[in-house]
Order: sequence, then structure tokens, then C-alpha cells
Amino acid sequence: MDFMKLKEAAKKIVDMEVRGAAKIARFAAETLLEYAKSLEGDFDGEMRKAAEILLNTRPTAVSLYNAINYVMQYSGNTADEKREDLIRRAEEFIRWVDAAKKEIGKIGVRRIKDSSTILTHCNSSAALSIIKEAHKAGKDIEVFATESRPRLQGHITVKELRKEEIPVTLIVDSAVRYFMRDIDYVIVGADAITVNGALVNKIGTSQIALAANEFRVPFMVAAETYKFSPKTLAGETVVIEERSPEEVAPKELLSLGVEVRNPAFDITPRRYIDLIVTEIGAIPPEMAYLVIKERFGFELPTEEELTLMPEHYD
Amino acid sequence: MDFMKLKEAAKKIVDMEVRGAAKIARFAAETLLEYAKSLEGDFDGEMRKAAEILLNTRPTAVSLYNAINYVMQYSGNTADEKREDLIRRAEEFIRWVDAAKKEIGKIGVRRIKDSSTILTHCNSSAALSIIKEAHKAGKDIEVFATESRPRLQGHITVKELRKEEIPVTLIVDSAVRYFMRDIDYVIVGADAITVNGALVNKIGTSQIALAANEFRVPFMVAAETYKFSPKTLAGETVVIEERSPEEVAPKELLSLGVEVRNPAFDITPRRYIDLIVTEIGAIPPEMAYLVIKERFGFELPTEEELTLMPEHYD
Amino acid sequence: MDFMKLKEAAKKIVDMEVRGAAKIARFAAETLLEYAKSLEGDFDGEMRKAAEILLNTRPTAVSLYNAINYVMQYSGNTADEKREDLIRRAEEFIRWVDAAKKEIGKIGVRRIKDSSTILTHCNSSAALSIIKEAHKAGKDIEVFATESRPRLQGHITVKELRKEEIPVTLIVDSAVRYFMRDIDYVIVGADAITVNGALVNKIGTSQIALAANEFRVPFMVAAETYKFSPKTLAGETVVIEERSPEEVAPKELLSLGVEVRNPAFDITPRRYIDLIVTEIGAIPPEMAYLVIKERFGFELPTEEELTLMPEHYD
Amino acid sequence: MDFMKLKEAAKKIVDMEVRGAAKIARFAAETLLEYAKSLEGDFDGEMRKAAEILLNTRPTAVSLYNAINYVMQYSGNTADEKREDLIRRAEEFIRWVDAAKKEIGKIGVRRIKDSSTILTHCNSSAALSIIKEAHKAGKDIEVFATESRPRLQGHITVKELRKEEIPVTLIVDSAVRYFMRDIDYVIVGADAITVNGALVNKIGTSQIALAANEFRVPFMVAAETYKFSPKTLAGETVVIEERSPEEVAPKELLSLGVEVRNPAFDITPRRYIDLIVTEIGAIPPEMAYLVIKERFGFELPTEEELTLMPEHYD
Amino acid sequence: MDFMKLKEAAKKIVDMEVRGAAKIARFAAETLLEYAKSLEGDFDGEMRKAAEILLNTRPTAVSLYNAINYVMQYSGNTADEKREDLIRRAEEFIRWVDAAKKEIGKIGVRRIKDSSTILTHCNSSAALSIIKEAHKAGKDIEVFATESRPRLQGHITVKELRKEEIPVTLIVDSAVRYFMRDIDYVIVGADAITVNGALVNKIGTSQIALAANEFRVPFMVAAETYKFSPKTLAGETVVIEERSPEEVAPKELLSLGVEVRNPAFDITPRRYIDLIVTEIGAIPPEMAYLVIKERFGFELPTEEELTLMPEHYD
Amino acid sequence: MDFMKLKEAAKKIVDMEVRGAAKIARFAAETLLEYAKSLEGDFDGEMRKAAEILLNTRPTAVSLYNAINYVMQYSGNTADEKREDLIRRAEEFIRWVDAAKKEIGKIGVRRIKDSSTILTHCNSSAALSIIKEAHKAGKDIEVFATESRPRLQGHITVKELRKEEIPVTLIVDSAVRYFMRDIDYVIVGADAITVNGALVNKIGTSQIALAANEFRVPFMVAAETYKFSPKTLAGETVVIEERSPEEVAPKELLSLGVEVRNPAFDITPRRYIDLIVTEIGAIPPEMAYLVIKERFGFELPTEEELTLMPEHYD
Repeated sequence: MDFMKLKEAAKKIVDMEVRGAAKIARFAAETLLEYAKSLEGDFDGEMRKAAEILLNTRPTAVSLYNAINYVMQYSGNTADEKREDLIRRAEEFIRWVDAAKKEIGKIGVRRIKDSSTILTHCNSSAALSIIKEAHKAGKDIEVFATESRPRLQGHITVKELRKEEIPVTLIVDSAVRYFMRDIDYVIVGADAITVNGALVNKIGTSQIALAANEFRVPFMVAAETYKFSPKTLAGETVVIEERSPEEVAPKELLSLGVEVRNPAFDITPRRYIDLIVTEIGAIPPEMAYLVIKERFGFELPTEEELTLMPEHYD
Repeated sequence: MDFMKLKEAAKKIVDMEVRGAAKIARFAAETLLEYAKSLEGDFDGEMRKAAEILLNTRPTAVSLYNAINYVMQYSGNTADEKREDLIRRAEEFIRWVDAAKKEIGKIGVRRIKDSSTILTHCNSSAALSIIKEAHKAGKDIEVFATESRPRLQGHITVKELRKEEIPVTLIVDSAVRYFMRDIDYVIVGADAITVNGALVNKIGTSQIALAANEFRVPFMVAAETYKFSPKTLAGETVVIEERSPEEVAPKELLSLGVEVRNPAFDITPRRYIDLIVTEIGAIPPEMAYLVIKERFGFELPTEEELTLMPEHYD
Repeated sequence: MDFMKLKEAAKKIVDMEVRGAAKIARFAAETLLEYAKSLEGDFDGEMRKAAEILLNTRPTAVSLYNAINYVMQYSGNTADEKREDLIRRAEEFIRWVDAAKKEIGKIGVRRIKDSSTILTHCNSSAALSIIKEAHKAGKDIEVFATESRPRLQGHITVKELRKEEIPVTLIVDSAVRYFMRDIDYVIVGADAITVNGALVNKIGTSQIALAANEFRVPFMVAAETYKFSPKTLAGETVVIEERSPEEVAPKELLSLGVEVRNPAFDITPRRYIDLIVTEIGAIPPEMAYLVIKERFGFELPTEEELTLMPEHYD
Repeated sequence: MDFMKLKEAAKKIVDMEVRGAAKIARFAAETLLEYAKSLEGDFDGEMRKAAEILLNTRPTAVSLYNAINYVMQYSGNTADEKREDLIRRAEEFIRWVDAAKKEIGKIGVRRIKDSSTILTHCNSSAALSIIKEAHKAGKDIEVFATESRPRLQGHITVKELRKEEIPVTLIVDSAVRYFMRDIDYVIVGADAITVNGALVNKIGTSQIALAANEFRVPFMVAAETYKFSPKTLAGETVVIEERSPEEVAPKELLSLGVEVRNPAFDITPRRYIDLIVTEIGAIPPEMAYLVIKERFGFELPTEEELTLMPEHYD
Repeated sequence: MDFMKLKEAAKKIVDMEVRGAAKIARFAAETLLEYAKSLEGDFDGEMRKAAEILLNTRPTAVSLYNAINYVMQYSGNTADEKREDLIRRAEEFIRWVDAAKKEIGKIGVRRIKDSSTILTHCNSSAALSIIKEAHKAGKDIEVFATESRPRLQGHITVKELRKEEIPVTLIVDSAVRYFMRDIDYVIVGADAITVNGALVNKIGTSQIALAANEFRVPFMVAAETYKFSPKTLAGETVVIEERSPEEVAPKELLSLGVEVRNPAFDITPRRYIDLIVTEIGAIPPEMAYLVIKERFGFELPTEEELTLMPEHYD
Repeated sequence: MDFMKLKEAAKKIVDMEVRGAAKIARFAAETLLEYAKSLEGDFDGEMRKAAEILLNTRPTAVSLYNAINYVMQYSGNTADEKREDLIRRAEEFIRWVDAAKKEIGKIGVRRIKDSSTILTHCNSSAALSIIKEAHKAGKDIEVFATESRPRLQGHITVKELRKEEIPVTLIVDSAVRYFMRDIDYVIVGADAITVNGALVNKIGTSQIALAANEFRVPFMVAAETYKFSPKTLAGETVVIEERSPEEVAPKELLSLGVEVRNPAFDITPRRYIDLIVTEIGAIPPEMAYLVIKERFGFELPTEEELTLMPEHYD
């Protein structure tokens, strides 16, 4: 992979051709791996440049940050030793992504009783991993899926579930509380988990959690540990990306002076979360701190690590 | 208006050409009035038949039921006397509708402080009456409007507000809780108010109320008294209409066996409502009982009144 | 009925041979009626004495107080006129009791959806009137009944329901929250309703209401209006009767110095009550004030009325 | 009383020589009475002027507004007839004030159990009327009083209570929640009650109510019905007076550019109020609407009444 | 101990002759120890068989599982070495059980203020250890004990406490909320603690916790660390045992077709638990994860460990 | 420093010349250091005596206890070795205090958005460190400070902030809930943090936290890890100091028999705390247990350590 190809890869993330917290993390690791393979010249300098290009595609994405940081902690004395170590780390990370999703399915399915109705939001492969596992295990389940405006990822979800012949009902995002009384579990994915146990996920998640809490319906999060944010330990907040108005409003309305606010994610506080299913076990959200420390080291991120992209954090 | 025209008028309600709790109530009164004008033959029998046809266009709509019941309580000895009385009652009801909206605007505006941000849902003429009145009074207000899937009535709302040059921001229904911290008031309309102070309104209203309550943002309802349901005093529940799956899902998904649930309304319990602004004053929701008694008489509805449309109530 | 028989009748209430708020109210009215019929001598003085004897059988029972007060408001110039009026009033009260229970069944049943699971506590004829009515109406219902320690009135309830072939499950009082997630409605009776909408009912009711509220299960009360307490309008509180320790503990434990507290009732605040079904309509608990005023007059009880039994109120 | 004296009387209210919702209402009625007695010339015009002067002393005080409105609804054909009627009405209002406080004491005391600890805030004669009545009735009570910064009215309260030899403990306003676990009742007075059951009272009341609610300690309000605000039925909000910074900060701090906000009252929503004790009975806060209608007429205030002092309402 | 005796020992657990989470754990360790002592032949195979027999006596009991797993992790090259190691481990476990209860008493007593009223449920030796320790320390305490239907273990509790001359009041399970206002601490034991801090304990515990939370009464759990469930880290849920209907209903009712549901335990979520007192310190429930990891190793249970008794977990 | 000077130093803490949890901890370390320098004779015995004198100046202060314990864990074979080690430890502790405050400022500032309004209570150097850091970073912030009766430390706070030209508004403690709707963050310091995440801080803190929670305003605590209480791991509770009545009431009131209760601190439970900012990272309050274990060792405090000052703990 040459520099041109690297830029093309980065563009795929920008254009959301590759999207979803898990997928972009895995893709970034692969890209670094491929780029390293054929790299000549100043290995450290070039890799650093590549890492920055990739980081800036979705500068607020925690999984992307963790993936790149993981891969970039290579060591070695010569360029070849460094390359080798980087490749090893990238492959390790990719295996982590794949194994984690599978393990989450296996752990999560143990929480699901037979004859259950599960509500999910957006399109999370980790959350669906639990649901499909339950179906495979012969549990008689039924799924409610929100359409997840503005990008309607709910349509992808219902297709995926129908492929497995799982009974599924599509509802508008506004109808969540109406059906909450009939739901046994809410299961969603995660874009990020913060040090104090908050969940950053697709816009709408927090009001689903609020309604689940109102009716005491267990609210479960499926989250690989590479989605936990080490920066939040140092006080950083997760920045919420705002997308284009065109995703929400037809041009006609925009031309009338109608403003649009289009945040991609929202934040669910720990009080509304019963359990986070990670690949290292099912945990309460308050344990995020410990997961971060175990996974990312007991030291606070250095000032440099934190200021890598200072313009993206306020 | 002959019987054919009556049927055409009824069809306009069925097809949602005429829609909105206030508008269908007013339209039904007009239709009965026009039909009565030219009616020959058995006045009572024919009017009764007309009333039933109109009732069955939206059999669960409380305002429609109240409008028709109000008009149909005409009296007189001869057909002409009855016609005259019916016309008088219908005109009275129409004036009620028009005056109530205006009065609600005048009462509601007194609650709005200067420099406020108001969130509204769907497209309620009574709620917008308050908002426009505030703008006219020179208060510096800003409005957040949900798009209100599946029928996107939020688009109508933002257009109406832009016509008055009121600053307005459109958001997806899922983003309500995200912005709640910045909202000063939530103001919505009503399809019906029950005897124990619950609000029946556009799907999504109850989760907005829940989020408003979480952040202690005042949640106000604009509701003419003809939307209060006398039947609920007798234990009846308001039936929630379910609309067509096509409103929500593209055919492609339906063909894969995806189910759709599409309730048009939901129910907000009184605990989440701060105030109902009616044309006879601003009241707490617990006062619904008293409003019903004052407006619709202190007697319980008779068995006959209740069983007029037994198939629609479970 | 002579004075001896009157005393015997009173003893039946004391010994709980006649029990339940509705039954003792009806029985007191009958007793006064019978006693008046054959009474000779000082009509006012004797009736007053009789009324006091009856009141003191369960001095804290609101329905008993209301029954006696209702009957004793007779008027007339001669003893015969007074007797006649008293008999008329007593018969009126008895008809009230009978009609109210029936009407509550008819109103309450309209709230019950098909295929519902209802939890009830203790043994309330008004609450069971709704449940039986639902069964008769062909709704597919299932009942959970608590055993209602210490007197196990739940056993009477399950027998009554089995007689109608209604499916019923008996649970210990401690298991209520465990099953709450599967319950669609809680329906209980009332010993008294206070001016600020609190429910006085069998011990355990308030923790059932608390659990119902936690899971947002509708909590309905079936209460005839003669159970509303006019004295509470004047600030009186409803006194909670404490029963004998022997109902709870075997002698062996008492002999070891184990204390027993055995309150017969507890108090459920209005915030946990969704609806009170009375014979004059379904109302929110906050309306108790209005019901009291409409039923018992807009004047505060006089000092004399309030101090009739000063020793029983603190 | 000539015009000069009238102005002096008005000044006493402005200077807070006469203060407290009940006292200023009574004083205004007396002042109008005295002024009317000696008035010559244009009775209506002069009285109207006097009324306006008094209203403007504390333009946001609901009891003052109600007092003046009550007195000013005199009628008659001649100046003498009008004077006579005004005097009659003023005397009636004064009797109302005196009788109401006494009656509230008698009603409220019935709620207080023996051996109780009561917390009160600021210095309310109606609230203290209940407390003193309880002491007189031989109930063993103990009082916690907040100091009530910035004007330390708590000092007046503790003196008043010590005069009756009631055990009393003074605490800082910040210590309320610390002691809440040991409190049996919170009893406070009212500056105003709104149509939706909110309490306007001395700054700090709402956070006491919040803490009482947290520990489920009954929160009782002692409020004469002339403190209920009829304007709020028409949507008006009660304006919160802000007092001088000097009450809070020493000059030294102000000279450093320290800002001060010094609101005199705050608003307690109905959800935190268990009971309002009025002279016409103990009621839940949701009944405010009914009290207003019964006391002040079923018609909405006219536009003129509402706009009498438009500059004071936003 | 031969195989016959082993079976007899197992039967004692089945018949509830030996019962209570701590007692069955200790008894199982003793039984394995005794069985190992005299065992000849295939040591591993026979011990494994014995372990399975014991596990299946109360297959859902976490303390039993932990006890057996602890003892069975013996090692050695020869049968004698293994036996020796097993004996050592069993003795270690038994000492753990004994020391833990004592240590919990010592830690817990530090939380109890003088002149306190404590409510307890069922019959937990760890909870009583704290209470007795407080009494011994001269603190003036008083205990409320529920009777704990259906098996009335509250009777055992009150006897135990009276033996120490601790003042104790017995109440029915339904009366808990009635007395909650007078309680200073709720202290209960545990059958199991899950990874997300939930408490599995005697049926009724969760509604006591709910009421304690309502009145902000501290709810403390006394739980030895061998009651923490390592399987829940892997997503397992704790299975709630259902006991025989005869414990609840007399035969007469069963013969009428009355169903009985008789769950032995319920689940209290972490939000209602203030503190868990373990032998390694007082901790918040959210720390369960850490306790499990420290006690049972940082690795997830293997598939084999989890599937040892697959039929008992759903 | 001789023994006389040591006593003088101790007196400075008693007289509150040196006050604030951080300052007294630092001062105690300095004092021990100085005392050790010139100490002759029995090093261990004398130092132990000095430590006890210092501990008893504010026997309930957790930071003081931690400071002294830290310094006193010196080791060595000879007096000189011990002295040297003690000095090293004391200097280490002092650096800890200084660095921690600075680091908390740097971590905390990352949570503060531009254009924020922050409320603080009392006068905490750690909390102010965050606020000043935000101002320095050019964030447009505004501060509300409570006056913090009875000692009015709020006056110190506003002066400190004005020195940095930060806009600041002073309010009475009672006005907190009134302004909460306009607050973006509450930031307070800590006197102690307990093992289950509770905050011990200046009286009034807990009702501020309650109001912040009501409006969902983030409530942040700035706490150095030497304020975490290791004793609470062993079940100890933090004792709340009561100060002199004269701080609250003028003599005149005391002479009338008015009692005063004047607790210096109150306790905020973990449910109202969003985040604790320590020098080792931002954490949820539930993590207090882990911080204590990491900082103070995984062993429970010994009986001796706990009973060092048995008279001060109940």
C-alpha cells in the first residue's frame, strides 16, 4: 500500500463507506499493517504521519483512537524489527476485534431467558451477536428494532435478523416508550464507554435507556473493551460529532431558514445501565475505570497523548 | 348537502385530508350543519345515521365524539324546530373551536418568559397558537421542532413558524433528550385528555414528557375542553389507533417478513404534566375530572351513549 | 329488635363475625333500622345511644362512621315521623351499598384489557366485583392473590374466584415484587380514602403500591364513596387499628418476651395510585376532596361531629 | 386618614415595617377602610387611586392583590352607600384574616401526633398557629427552625416559640437535609398558591421540600385562601421579587465587583407538597384550582383585571 | 465416610435439615473432607462423583458451588498427596466460613449508632452476627424481625435474639413499609451476590430494600465473599429455586385448582443497596466484580466449569 | 521545634487558624518534620506522642489522619536513620499535597465547556483550582458562590475569584435550588471520601447535590486521594464534628433557652455524585474502594490502627 492508497483508505472512513465503531477500528489496524508492509524510508516518521491521517478521519471516535494507539506502540531497533512488531500488534488487534464480538455473544446469551422480547437500536454487530446467539441456542426470541433516523440503520438490522429468520418488528423511534411494557431486555452497542460508566452511542440511545429504566426493563450494553476511553480517565470528555443538516431536512426547508441540529450520538449516564457485556466478562458500568486501567495501563495518558489532537477536544 | 356529499365529507376524514383533533371536530360540526340544512324526511333517523357515519371515520377520536354529541343534542317538536336548533348548536360548537384556540394562545403566552427556547412535537394548532402569540408579543423565542415520524408533521410546523419568521431548529425524534438541557418549555397539543389527567397525543409525546420530567423542564399541554373525554369518567379507556405499516417500512422490508407496529398516539400520565392550558384557564392535569363534569354534565354517560360503538372499545 | 339484640349485633362487629368496610357499614344501617322499628320512649336519646354503641365497635372505621351519620340525619316532628324518616334513610343507605358495588364492577371492567393478569390483596368485594365482571364479559384474565397475613383473607379470595372458575395463583405477601413484572393491573379495595387522596387499606397494600409504581403497573382502587372520610377535610387523620399479638405470634414466642406489632391497615399516598373507581365514576385520587364535598356537604364537620369520639383520634 | 397618611401607610409596606403576606393584606384592608371613612369628592376615582398606590408597594404580593380586590368590589349608588359597602367589605376581609389563622391552627393541629419534631422555615403566623395549638393541646412537640438568611426571620420564630416555652433548636439553612431524618413534619406558610398547586414562599422553601420528599417526611403548608392566586388561572405566573444586594453582601465585597442575586421567594412544585391546610379544610395542592374558583368566582379575570399592573408581570 | 454416608449427607441438604447459604457450604466442605479421608480406588473419579452429588442437592446455590469448587482444586501426584491437599483445602474453607462470620460482625458493628432500631428479614447468621456484636458492645439496640413466610424463619431469629436478651418485635412481612419510618438500618444476609452487585436473598428482601430506599433508610447486606458468584462474570444468571406449593397453600385450596408460585429467593438490584459488609471490608455493591476477581481469579470460568450443570442454568 | 512549639502548632489547628482538609494535612506533615529534626531522646516514643497530639486537634479529620499515618510509617535501625526516613516521608507527603491540587486543576478543567456557569460551595482550594484553570485556559466562565453559613467561607471564595477577575455572584445558601436551572456544573471540594463513595463535606453540600441531581446538573467533587478514608473500609463511619452554638446564634437567643445544632459537615451519598476528580484521574464515586486499596494497601487497618482514638468514633 502506497501513500495514495492510504489516503483512499482514509477517505472510505470519512465517506462512511466503512462505519461502525468496531469496523473502523479493525479497518484502521489493517490499513496501518498494509502500509507498514511496503513502507520504505523513515519508518517512525511515516507511520506517525499515517496514524495521524487515519485519526483525523473520525477524530472523535474512541475505538479508532484505541486501535491506532495499540498498533503504534511497536518497538524495535531497526526499521525491519519495528515493522515486524507493528505487524504483529496489528494482527493481534484484529484478532482482538474478531474474538471479542464472538465472546460477547457467548457471554451475553446466558442472560437471555427463553421466550423473550428484545429491543435494539441502530445496527450494532456486538448487540446482534448476542441476539443471533440466542436464536441459535433455540431460545424463542422476538426483536423490536427502531428505524434509527436519520440514517435508518434499523433497516439494516431488520434485514440481518430476517436472514436468520428471527421474528422482528420495526417501529419508529418515537414509539419506544409505547412498547416498553412488552420488552424484556434492551440490548444496544457502544461507540464509547467513559471512565465513569457513561455510554456514548447512536443518538436516541439515552432516551431508550430512560424509558427502560422507567419500566425497570434491563438495559444491557454490548461493548468490546477497545471502546473504553482511556482519555476520560484524564478528564477528557467524549466529543459528540454533528453531521450534515441534509441528513435530516429536505433542501426546501433549509432554504426557508430552518436550522438543523444533527448530533450523531448521545450520552447515557451509568444510572440507566444494568450491565455491560464485554469480552472479559459481564460488568456493571461503574467498573469502566477498572477495565480502562487493566487494558490501557495504570498510568494516566501523557500530556502528549492527550494533546495529539487538541483541536478536537474542548 | 345530500347523502353522497356527506359520504364524501366522511371520506376526507378517513383519508386524512382533514386531520388533527381540532380540525376534524370542527369539520364534523360543519358537515352535520350542512347536511341538516337540506335534509328532508325522517330528521331524527337521518341525522342519527349521518352522525354514525361521521363517528366511524375515526371512531377513537375524542374530539370528534364530543363534537357530534354536542351538535346532536338538539331539541324541538317539529323537524324545522329541530333543524334550527341543530344548526344553532353546530354554529355554537364551531365558534367554540375558533375561540378556544385563540383564548389558549392568550392564556398560554403569559407563562412564557422572554428569551426562551421551546420544544414542540408534531403539529398542534393550539400549541402553535401559544408560540406565535409569544412571538407577536415581542418575546425573543426560539423553537425546537421534532420531525415527528412517520408522517413528518414537524415539516409543517417549521414552515408555519418560519412564515412568522420565528427562529426554528428541526431535529430527529431521537435527539429530544440530547437537547433537553437547553429547553425552557415543552409545549404540545392534545388528541384527548382522560378523567385521570392523562394526555393522549401523537406517538412520541410520552417519551418527550419523560425526558422533560427528568430535567425538570416544564411540560405544558394546550388543549381545548372539547378534547376532554367524558367516557373515561365511566371507565372507558381511549383506544390507540394503529396505522398502516406502509407509513413506516418500505415494501422491500415488508416482503422479507418484517412486522411493523405503527400506533398513532401514546399516553402521557399526569405525573409528567405540569399544566394544561385550556380556554377556561390554566389547570393542573388532575383537574380533568372537574372540567369534564363542568363541560359535559355531572351525570355519568348512559349505557347507550357508551355502547354506541361497542366494537371500538375493549 | 330490643336493646339486648342491639348489643348482640354490636358484638358481631367486635368479634369480626361481620367484617369488611362495606359489610359493617351495611350491617350498622340495618341494625339501626331494626332497632328504630320497635323503639319506644325517647326516640332521639335512644337512637343516639344505639348509634354510639355501634360506632364504638370499630371506632376507627370510616365506612361505619359514614353509615351511622347518614342514617342518623333523620328529621321529623314526632317520634313516628322520625322513625319513618330514619327507616327511609337506612333503606337508602343499604341500596347505596348494593348499587355501588355493582356499578363499580361495571365501570372498572372497562379498564381491563383482554388477556390480563391482575394482582389483588386481601378480600375486597368491590375489587372482586371488577374482576368477576371482567371474567363474565369473556375477557381472558388470570389473578394473583396474596395470602394476606395474618388473617389469610387471601384464602377466601381464591375460593371465591375458583367458584367462578377464574384461574388464580396464590403467593405469599413477600413475593409481590418478584411477580410484579408479569402483572398488568393491581386492583385493591379500600377501608377509607382521605381528603388528600391517600388510601387506607389492609396492611401490605402500600408496599404493593410501591412495587407497582416501580414497574409502572397501573394501581387501581375500588372504593364506594361512603368510604371517603369527611373528617379528614377537617384535618383528622385516619387512626390505624392495631390487633392482637396472638394473630401473629404463637404463645411460645410471646412467652419469651417477643413483642408483636400488628397494625390492621396501612396508608398508600396518592402518588402511587393511578385511579379510584367509585360508583360515580373513575377518578384520580386527588379528586377525593371533591367527592367528599359533593357527598357530605360543603361545610366542614362541626366541632361536635368531630369530637363525638375524641378518645379515638389523636 | 388623608392622602398624606395614606402615603405614609403605603411606605410602611415598602419599608417592610409591615411585612408578611397575611399582615400586609390585613393592613391594606384597614388602610382602605380608614381612607374611605374620611374621603370626600370623587369616591370611585380617589379610592381607585388609593388602591393603586397600595398595590404598587409590593406589586407581586398575591395576598395584597386579593385584599385590595376584595375590598374594592364595593357597590352602591351614592358615595355614602359605596363608602358603607366598602367599609363592610374591608371589615369582612379583616375578620377573614383573623378567623382564618385561628381555624388553620385548629385544623392543622389534628394532623400532629404526640411526641413529634417539626421543622419550620422563616416566620409564618399560620404555620406557627398550628405549632402553638399543638403545644397548647398538650402534645409533646419540639421545633427545628432555620435561621432564614438573609433577613434571619428564624430569630423571630424561635423567640415566639420560646415565649410559649416550646423546645426549639436553631440551625443554619444549610443544615436542613442533615436533620431531615429526625423530623416528623415540615410546616411552612405561604406567600402565594398558584392554580396548579405550586407554593410561592420564602427563599429556601423549595429545597426544604425537596429534602422532605427525599426522606418522605410530610410537607404541610398553612395557607389562608386569600393567598391563592386567581390570576394564575389566567396563565399569569407569580413574579419573584428580588431584594437589595446589601441584604446579602458587605459593601467590601460589592466594591470588588461581586454580583449578588437575592430573590425573596422560590417556588415549590405540587409534587413535593402533601397537604395544604386552609381555613376551609385540609386539601391536596391539586385542589388549588377549585379553591380559587370557589373563592374568586368561576369566571376568568378580565383582561382589565389582569393588566392593571402590566409592567410587573412578564 | 462411605458412599452410603455421603448420600445420607447429601439428603440432609435436600431435606433442608442443613440449610442456609453458609451452613450448606461449610457442610459440603466437611462432607468432602470426610469422604476423602477414607476413600480408596480412583481418587479423582470418586471425588468428582461425590462433588456432583453434593452440587445437585441445591444446584442453584452459589455458596455450595463455591465451596465445592474451592475444595476440589486440590493437586498432587499420588492419591495420598491429593487427599492430603484436599483435606487441607477443606479445612481452609471451613476456617474461612467461621472467620468470615466473626469478622463481618466486627466490621458491621462499627456502622451501628447507639440507640438504633434495626430491621432484619429471614434468619441470616452473618446479619445476626452484626446485631449481636452491637448488643455485646453495649449499644442500645432494638430489632424488628419479619416472620418470613412461608417457612417462618423469623421465629428462629426472634428466639436467637431473645436468648441474648435483645429487645425484638415480630411483624408480618406485609407490615415492613408501615414501620420503615422508625427503622435506622435494614440488615440482611445473602444467598448470593452477582457481578453487577445484585443481591439474591430470601423472597421478600427486594421489597424491603425498595421500601428502605423510599425512606432513605440504609440497607446493609452481610455477605461472606464465598457467596459472590464467579459464574455471573461470565454472564450466567442466578437461578431462583421454586419450592413446593404445600409450603404455601393448604391441600383444600390446591384441590380447588388454586395454583401456587413459591420462589425461595428474589433479586435486589444494586441501586437499593448502600453497603455490603464482607470479611474483607465494607464495600459498595458495584465492587462485587472486583471481589469476584480477587477471590476467584482474573480468568473467566472455563466453558467446562460453566457447563458442569447445564440443565440448571437457562 | 521543641515540645512547646509543637503544642503551639497544634493549637493553630484547634483554633482554626490553620483550616481546610488539605491545609491541616500539609501543616501536620510539616510540623512532624520540624519536630523530628531537633528531636533528641526516645525517637519512637516522642514522635508517637507528637502524632497523638496532632491527631487530637481535629480527631475526626480524615486528611489529618492520613497525613500523620503516612509520615509515621518511617523505618530505620537507629534514631538518625528513622529521622531521615521520617523527613523524607514528610517531604514526600507535602509534595503530594501540592502536586495533587495542581493535577486536579489540570484534569478537571478538561470537563468544563466554554461559556459555563459553575456553582461552588464553601472554600475548597481543589475546586477553585479547576475553576481558575478554566479561566486561565480562556474559557468564558461565571461562578455562583454560596455564602456558606455559619462561617461565611463563601466570602473568601468570591474574593479569591475576583482577584483573578472571574465574574462571580454571591447567593444565600437557601437560594441554591432557585438558580440550579441556570447552572452547568456544581464543583465542590471534600473533607473525606468513604469506601462506598460518599462525600463528607461542608454542611449544605448534600442538599446542593440533591438539587443538582433533581435538575440533572453534573455534580463534581475535587478530592486529593489523601482524603479517602481507609478506616471506612473496616466499617468505621466518619464522625461529623459539631461546632459551637455561638457560631450560629447571638447570645440573646441562647439565653432564652434556644438550642443550637451546628454540624460542620454533612454526607452526600454516591447516587448524587457524577464524578470525583483526583490527582490520579477522574473516577466515579463507586471507585473509592479501589483508590483506598491502591493508596493505603490491600490489608484492612489493624485493630490497633482503628482503636488509636476509640473515643472519637462511635
